[in-house]
Amino acid sequence: MSDSRPIALDAMGGDHAPHEIVAGAVHAVRERGLSVVLVGAPRVLYEALADHDATKEVPIVRAEEALEMNEGALASLRRPRSSIAIACHLVRRGDASAVVSAGSTAGIVATGRLRLKAQQGVLRPAIAVALPTRPTPALLLDAGANAEVKPEMLVQFAHLGAAYAELAHGIEDPRVGLLTIGSEPEKGNKLVKRAHELLQGSPGLTFAGNVEGHDLLAGKVDVITTDGFTGNVALKTMEGAVRYAFDELRETLSESRLARLGAAMQRSRVRELRRRLDAEAYGGAVLLGLNGTVVIAHGSSKAQGISAACKLAADLSAGGIVSGIADRIAATHRSHRLW
Amino acid sequence: MSDSRPIALDAMGGDHAPHEIVAGAVHAVRERGLSVVLVGAPRVLYEALADHDATKEVPIVRAEEALEMNEGALASLRRPRSSIAIACHLVRRGDASAVVSAGSTAGIVATGRLRLKAQQGVLRPAIAVALPTRPTPALLLDAGANAEVKPEMLVQFAHLGAAYAELAHGIEDPRVGLLTIGSEPEKGNKLVKRAHELLQGSPGLTFAGNVEGHDLLAGKVDVITTDGFTGNVALKTMEGAVRYAFDELRETLSESRLARLGAAMQRSRVRELRRRLDAEAYGGAVLLGLNGTVVIAHGSSKAQGISAACKLAADLSAGGIVSGIADRIAATHRSHRLW
Repeated sequence: MSDSRPIALDAMGGDHAPHEIVAGAVHAVRERGLSVVLVGAPRVLYEALADHDATKEVPIVRAEEALEMNEGALASLRRPRSSIAIACHLVRRGDASAVVSAGSTAGIVATGRLRLKAQQGVLRPAIAVALPTRPTPALLLDAGANAEVKPEMLVQFAHLGAAYAELAHGIEDPRVGLLTIGSEPEKGNKLVKRAHELLQGSPGLTFAGNVEGHDLLAGKVDVITTDGFTGNVALKTMEGAVRYAFDELRETLSESRLARLGAAMQRSRVRELRRRLDAEAYGGAVLLGLNGTVVIAHGSSKAQGISAACKLAADLSAGGIVSGIADRIAATHRSHRLW
Repeated sequence: MSDSRPIALDAMGGDHAPHEIVAGAVHAVRERGLSVVLVGAPRVLYEALADHDATKEVPIVRAEEALEMNEGALASLRRPRSSIAIACHLVRRGDASAVVSAGSTAGIVATGRLRLKAQQGVLRPAIAVALPTRPTPALLLDAGANAEVKPEMLVQFAHLGAAYAELAHGIEDPRVGLLTIGSEPEKGNKLVKRAHELLQGSPGLTFAGNVEGHDLLAGKVDVITTDGFTGNVALKTMEGAVRYAFDELRETLSESRLARLGAAMQRSRVRELRRRLDAEAYGGAVLLGLNGTVVIAHGSSKAQGISAACKLAADLSAGGIVSGIADRIAATHRSHRLW
């Protein structure tokens, strides 16, 4: 890690803030060798750090306010001194390399856009989520930052995701799929039909064509571009369906004594699998396209999830995700000028 | 069953047509006591029926053409004598009570709209799919007939689904949810925000508010209304995620000898569960809002799936789904006039 600047960790966002956030910071520092600064109410954070005997290992930056989990986009305007706003400010000033927050997604997106601003040429920042495909994760974006988009934005989302896939998953020429309702180019609504045409001509992009809902976890492509409405519905549907399948299975397995015996044998393996499918292990979603890296951890994150999110933020930042995106966006613009 | 008219079964549509379709017809007649007429190429169908010794039990209506599985909406115009067109024609003439086809969804929707026409006052027919929630299935619609919709259509889809839920699942005052990306009324894109307002004021509807992707299989509501683009993506995402969870689980379970032993014990139960989650057992999707009942069986349906689809078609038709929908749509219109 060449970047010695710390991760700015929003200590006040998330269902288990601040204690699990603080525990996550301590884990990230001690077990992963990362540099982390906690942003939030100093007294509470100091006490929480003292519980871990870590007051000297993790610095605190004061933030007087915090966004509530149910506060949306507007709160980011009303609260310029919130912990997430201060965390963004640290990155903006160059005092931190990246932001991590488990707070309300709408609040993080709005605050990030307001404080860090979109990168030059980026129409809309988007949320990328890594799906547990093999051998490498597939990136779904936009997973919810933009409910209403234009076809050009879907092309940019593809570039944002491609830059992420190259950097974080080491994939050369990531294959990009467009989420729609049929494999033929003319399948879908007006938005995706036009996006299909644009994607075909976009320089530096390996467009693999349309993908459908059942392809999301099939590992056919490395990046899946979609609008934030469809992407969010698909992501939550997927989470709900996996949970449903496991719940049904547990019920089925507990119905007979013989089956119960088998289930006992397998419990640990099933638990292991479930953890792998759990978004928390992946360190959360990333808000791409801003002048700074912002990782959005699950609201329900505990220490392990927060620590993984800090690692992801550090890796993306050290790998130069922001400049990687800038290069791609600039290349698209140059090519547009040529034509 | 008071309606003695047969089900018109498109014998030429589906991956396993005509043999599994014919086997399904024989099953429906012998095991379920239904009346079925096969529509397709007479010679092939006669021979297939002869294999079942059923040439006297299932009549054949000639259709010279068939839609290919990859043929879309336009083919329905080019092929007025296709098996699906003739099947619709039989219902139109009153010679059959309902249509069942495992052919291409786009072809069935286009042909159904062209030959049976939308019911009076229905803006757009929609595809309803029963999700395996408990104790009763939740209906998701539109699952793919309309990629582009207006807010008023989402309200109508809610009524179509409510009529279906009342009739097929015996639910009084079905609870209706609007699929979007947050529980608050203002969450979503313009389409759903407007639909939310309209749903709140729609007479005869129990609107339970917004639902999200993870609620689809949670059994919170009886009917979920959405546009055909989002609904299709969600449905396929769900199918893919359940398949993924089972595949991962199988792999996990086969990794150790001890676990393999457990897995062997449970194999039959898991298979049973999988069948329950399989859409085929539900007899397929229903195209609602036409002057006649049209059941769209899975393209991969075998005999059992076709037979279940015939049963669903017979039940809906005998229960008066078309007039149930007509009453609801008329009531909305009357209320609009009053205001």
